[in-house]
Amino acid sequence: MKAPEATAVAAFDVGGTRVKAALVDVQLQVIAAVTVPTPPTISTDPGGALRPVLDDLRGRVEGVKIVRAGVVVPGLVDDDTGTAVLAVNLGWRDVPLGRLVGDALEVPTRIGHDVRGGLLAEQRLGAAHGTDSVLFVPVGTGIAAATMVDGHLLRAGGWAGEIGHAVVDADGALCACGSRGCLETIASASAIARRYTERTGRDATAEDIARRVVEGEVEARAVWTEAVDALAQVLAVTLTATGVDRVVVGGGLVLSGEVLLDPLRRALHARMTLGRRPEVVASQLLDRAGCLGAAVLAWDSVE
Amino acid sequence: MKAPEATAVAAFDVGGTRVKAALVDVQLQVIAAVTVPTPPTISTDPGGALRPVLDDLRGRVEGVKIVRAGVVVPGLVDDDTGTAVLAVNLGWRDVPLGRLVGDALEVPTRIGHDVRGGLLAEQRLGAAHGTDSVLFVPVGTGIAAATMVDGHLLRAGGWAGEIGHAVVDADGALCACGSRGCLETIASASAIARRYTERTGRDATAEDIARRVVEGEVEARAVWTEAVDALAQVLAVTLTATGVDRVVVGGGLVLSGEVLLDPLRRALHARMTLGRRPEVVASQLLDRAGCLGAAVLAWDSVE
Repeated sequence: MKAPEATAVAAFDVGGTRVKAALVDVQLQVIAAVTVPTPPTISTDPGGALRPVLDDLRGRVEGVKIVRAGVVVPGLVDDDTGTAVLAVNLGWRDVPLGRLVGDALEVPTRIGHDVRGGLLAEQRLGAAHGTDSVLFVPVGTGIAAATMVDGHLLRAGGWAGEIGHAVVDADGALCACGSRGCLETIASASAIARRYTERTGRDATAEDIARRVVEGEVEARAVWTEAVDALAQVLAVTLTATGVDRVVVGGGLVLSGEVLLDPLRRALHARMTLGRRPEVVASQLLDRAGCLGAAVLAWDSVE
Repeated sequence: MKAPEATAVAAFDVGGTRVKAALVDVQLQVIAAVTVPTPPTISTDPGGALRPVLDDLRGRVEGVKIVRAGVVVPGLVDDDTGTAVLAVNLGWRDVPLGRLVGDALEVPTRIGHDVRGGLLAEQRLGAAHGTDSVLFVPVGTGIAAATMVDGHLLRAGGWAGEIGHAVVDADGALCACGSRGCLETIASASAIARRYTERTGRDATAEDIARRVVEGEVEARAVWTEAVDALAQVLAVTLTATGVDRVVVGGGLVLSGEVLLDPLRRALHARMTLGRRPEVVASQLLDRAGCLGAAVLAWDSVE
């Protein structure tokens, strides 16, 4: 007798530079995974661009039936219609991504937002487990957030969570969005590197700077503190307005651990009134959060 | 043949100084209404305190059957269990308000938060009609907000919406909550009056000050602009984080009309990036919003 065929979903986290893809079973265990540079054809033929990635995954395992696909992307996403409304880095504007990818992969395909997907994955498997009111904020090249309140993931037509573009310093540096002093221009990994270079004349990555913070370098500490304070300023208002009391920090910057989390926690507690003390914890899924979120979307669509 | 008896719900908006009560039909039309000073016994015997108010309403109409009651209150409310978790002005801490009032009025009774109730009423009958993502912010003696995103009213155990205690100026005036520089200490009607007196040595109400803003008085304009800017600062982050793009301003201060709304709109637009331009409109239900919200809660519980 032949063993019953295992089933999986194909999950894709499509970013501006990399596509992370995996086959994921119903227990959200990864059966196979691959990361590839984002194909340039993603802009014009997203289905065709992802098809070879799926074939690659298929070649790594035997006897797995793929029943659905989930794709998470950055930018403005309409989950209900499966449309990538706007993703500048990927060259998409009103692209019917769900249909295009579904046709190419020949399975029903759900589309979602990378950060909102990440929150779902952290809730099922990671640092957001056990709560239905939580904020997930990856801090990397950019900053965005996803917020769940009372079990509802805030979407507002895809606009919810763009806290990277909350204005912190109206006289600050010009942001790619056209405004000045957005949170992203102060607290993202790229902004921290840029501001350190402006201050010292020396190049360094955010990771280098985090190390120099621990070593006590004055300039590194100044840039880092400004970043943490800006993040705390925006998060404190967001948490107060939404009532959420757990923050899961993700993205590249959280790899610095308590160098980021400890001062962020202190700054938030100092700014949060009414005796509330939000939890501030690190993402557990880290750079796998988005791809696992795509798997959650795909599996949830089966029910 | 006798005409069929009309049905109504009894709606109560219980505040620290006044109780607004009404009998409201299923079309949300007010059949009878009364406003009374808040009975001092409200703290110890809320059911007994509201019973005479209901009797008063009953005496004003004939042939109306009261099928439910709705009660909205300030503070921290657990709608699901009908508990007033904390309302300092009313002397409540973990009071099972739904049960106590329901027993005294002899109808099933729903409990809700006054500002969240007000948003529901504005959505059914007023300035929030036609949208399911909207923020309602009464600005009066205090400041609180209710936010609906994608049709879900944010609660988070009653903590959502306390934007009056978002910190705007960490070196600012001491707030009743124990923190410094909360939004309420700068932009509430009472704060505007206090700050004007501190600046000029002259007493004035927020209403007087609004009039002096129109007349061009320098001190009035300075105090008013600081209030509007503080409100815009907190609202801009809240709107960016939640994706909401309609703001309904209520409370006593909105009676000043465009003196408040026009600069608030400009300040918000200046701070909102990504090309979004939130609508900023006045409450249509004004001081009836809470009581009508109580009626909405009561009627919604019938289904």
